[in-house]
Amino acid sequence: MSKLVPPHGGKGLVCRLLEGAALEAEKKKAAGLKQIEISSRAKGDLIMMGIGGFSPLNGFMKKADWKNVCEKMLLSDGTFWPVPVTLDISAADAKAVKAGEEVALVRNGEVMATMKLEEIYEMTETDKKWECEKVFKGEGPDSQKFWEVAPNDHPGVKMVLAQQEYNIAGPVKVLSQGEFPTKFPGVYMTPAQLRTKMDERKWQKVAALQLRNPMHRSHEYLAKIAAEVCDGVVIHSLVGSLKPGDIPAEVRVRCIDTLVDKYFVKDHIIQAGYPLDMRYAGPREALLHATFRQNYGVNNLIVGRDHAGVGDFYGMFEAQEIFRKMPTPAEDSKRLLCEPMNIDWTFYCVKCDGMASMRTCPHGKDDRVILSGTKLRKMLSEGAEVPDHFGRDEVLVILREYYSSLTEKVEIKMQSAAAGKGM
Amino acid sequence: MSKLVPPHGGKGLVCRLLEGAALEAEKKKAAGLKQIEISSRAKGDLIMMGIGGFSPLNGFMKKADWKNVCEKMLLSDGTFWPVPVTLDISAADAKAVKAGEEVALVRNGEVMATMKLEEIYEMTETDKKWECEKVFKGEGPDSQKFWEVAPNDHPGVKMVLAQQEYNIAGPVKVLSQGEFPTKFPGVYMTPAQLRTKMDERKWQKVAALQLRNPMHRSHEYLAKIAAEVCDGVVIHSLVGSLKPGDIPAEVRVRCIDTLVDKYFVKDHIIQAGYPLDMRYAGPREALLHATFRQNYGVNNLIVGRDHAGVGDFYGMFEAQEIFRKMPTPAEDSKRLLCEPMNIDWTFYCVKCDGMASMRTCPHGKDDRVILSGTKLRKMLSEGAEVPDHFGRDEVLVILREYYSSLTEKVEIKMQSAAAGKGM
Repeated sequence: MSKLVPPHGGKGLVCRLLEGAALEAEKKKAAGLKQIEISSRAKGDLIMMGIGGFSPLNGFMKKADWKNVCEKMLLSDGTFWPVPVTLDISAADAKAVKAGEEVALVRNGEVMATMKLEEIYEMTETDKKWECEKVFKGEGPDSQKFWEVAPNDHPGVKMVLAQQEYNIAGPVKVLSQGEFPTKFPGVYMTPAQLRTKMDERKWQKVAALQLRNPMHRSHEYLAKIAAEVCDGVVIHSLVGSLKPGDIPAEVRVRCIDTLVDKYFVKDHIIQAGYPLDMRYAGPREALLHATFRQNYGVNNLIVGRDHAGVGDFYGMFEAQEIFRKMPTPAEDSKRLLCEPMNIDWTFYCVKCDGMASMRTCPHGKDDRVILSGTKLRKMLSEGAEVPDHFGRDEVLVILREYYSSLTEKVEIKMQSAAAGKGM
Repeated sequence: MSKLVPPHGGKGLVCRLLEGAALEAEKKKAAGLKQIEISSRAKGDLIMMGIGGFSPLNGFMKKADWKNVCEKMLLSDGTFWPVPVTLDISAADAKAVKAGEEVALVRNGEVMATMKLEEIYEMTETDKKWECEKVFKGEGPDSQKFWEVAPNDHPGVKMVLAQQEYNIAGPVKVLSQGEFPTKFPGVYMTPAQLRTKMDERKWQKVAALQLRNPMHRSHEYLAKIAAEVCDGVVIHSLVGSLKPGDIPAEVRVRCIDTLVDKYFVKDHIIQAGYPLDMRYAGPREALLHATFRQNYGVNNLIVGRDHAGVGDFYGMFEAQEIFRKMPTPAEDSKRLLCEPMNIDWTFYCVKCDGMASMRTCPHGKDDRVILSGTKLRKMLSEGAEVPDHFGRDEVLVILREYYSSLTEKVEIKMQSAAAGKGM
């Protein structure tokens, strides 16, 4: 008997991925359907629907769900859900299809899914702005400011505002998990696969560390605090797309492999990856992270500094605060059961003689080893020494290698350009 | 509105301490009652009943409660309670009193309480042995062995077997908190006082670190893990009596003062003391620690290695295991609501470059700084260097001072003895 938290929504894992003969038949059928090109974000969402990561969703949201989720973080049946999961199409495509019809959803030439159209609804500029205001605007002073001055600088907002004129909604049948199973073998896992691994270890209280950056000592410390008080910890990386300039998943996964190998006790740690793109929705995305973690069998999400934030758009701990303001559906099965494990800003402190956070270290700024991401990237790409205790040597080696490969690429490009100019 | 866990037993804080005019009147009356000398352990128990630390108990246990508690860890009304709280008297005293009578309970000349005798019951050698077997015998192989070979080497067992021939039971009126409020000002606290302090800080999730030894890095680490994930931590020391050779509470409190001052963030830590004597009941005593912690408003008890154990009598983590085997009374108010926060064996690890535990450090014995209590005492009393990272310098200074004062006392005694012999 599994001791893990049940999937969100009270319907078990809702997996829309077809297999075997049903898959082959659907693929054949899909070839004859109208093909609709989808975004990278929609591809990730589809795979999550396929593998049960987005239980209880069985497809993209209708207008009533979209509105309720934006406004109240509830599906129209009262189940908690924090961010819209919608699929946009162009005005031309919207005219060419009608409710009741089936369509094929395609990304870069691969048919990802078929969908039974139940609703086609317009998304005006006003609708999109309203969605952004509800979903991306935090409540802190930082958020207010960006919202008034430069919403377009926010990559999440930009993505929603760039959506096409219509949304289509309806249940999906998913035909592929894309490149993830082959690109990240042993790391990319479905909720059922992760649950099996955790059941084998008899885990019950499990924390997940959401990760989309390389893992330094500060992240390691978060995972280790959780490992001290839970049965186990899942280092759960986003292996979908990030904004340009971020470190690709392949490199991050290698860093985590090394760390797990050298600095963790195998019995209490699992590395896994999930196929979503970042939405950069800060607090609301932290809630989404907790929601799909519940489907993966995780009942504690580590929520640290600026979770799912970007730039200075959100207050440092707004994601921790939103968990306190969540709506509480009356029925237990409709509530979010994955709880936040809030941890403060963490760092190495020389006087503490170890890792600590603002909650446990009473010392001063000068005693703490803190580096901004920008400064670290500069050090790594220039081959400069990173201060002691900031990261593990084994991880820094991998990152240096990555950054120097970038520099080489730039140099090769510059040389080719120069050669092209006949110099 | 307090967010803290309610006191155990569903009756609020049951405080039997008298104050003001009622106290004066009872003192006057007590002078005319039969005086019964009580043990140090009973004095601590009485004060806990006085201040609400033993809620819902209102006096010493009758035979039915004693039996039920030994056997099932339940009072006869079904409320959880893990160890007997009884008061022994001699056969001569038992003959001189009768049920319905009031008696005065005296310790070292001070009337601690009055008690209305509701029951006088014999405790045969068989009864006492049975109690010990139920309460002190753990379930691990270590415990089995000691039980068969040398139960009298166990200080808790010895104490029970040395009890007098009868127990008396009935509700008490407590007249004094003994020396604790004046001897440990600002540290000794009643449950109501600690609750007020925690309510002022709006704490809800609170962990207690049970302490009866000086606080080294390994204990500091336990408190800090808890501080990372709870609203606050109470370093809660036993300030009652210990077995000979242990470090007295005054010295321990000074060590903790220093640590809290230099290495903790004030907002998340409180030092407090409670007046009980150690029972050395290992797993069962861990449950008692959790039970009265709930009365103090604490909902997580840190349970580490060999909690409330002594010598090698219990398995290292038997105290963590017993929480899983606890009886679960049907009514919520009768259940224990303070949960264990289980933490593994902790130490400094050179390769980890910080504190860790068996759950978080994958390295070898040679990388870890681990000292036995005996070895540490030897180093401190001989003024030898303690290995780096084992303790904080500020604490080691206090301990060295204490140990050298002991050595001086021994020398003075030896000199006086020598002088006495006319050498």
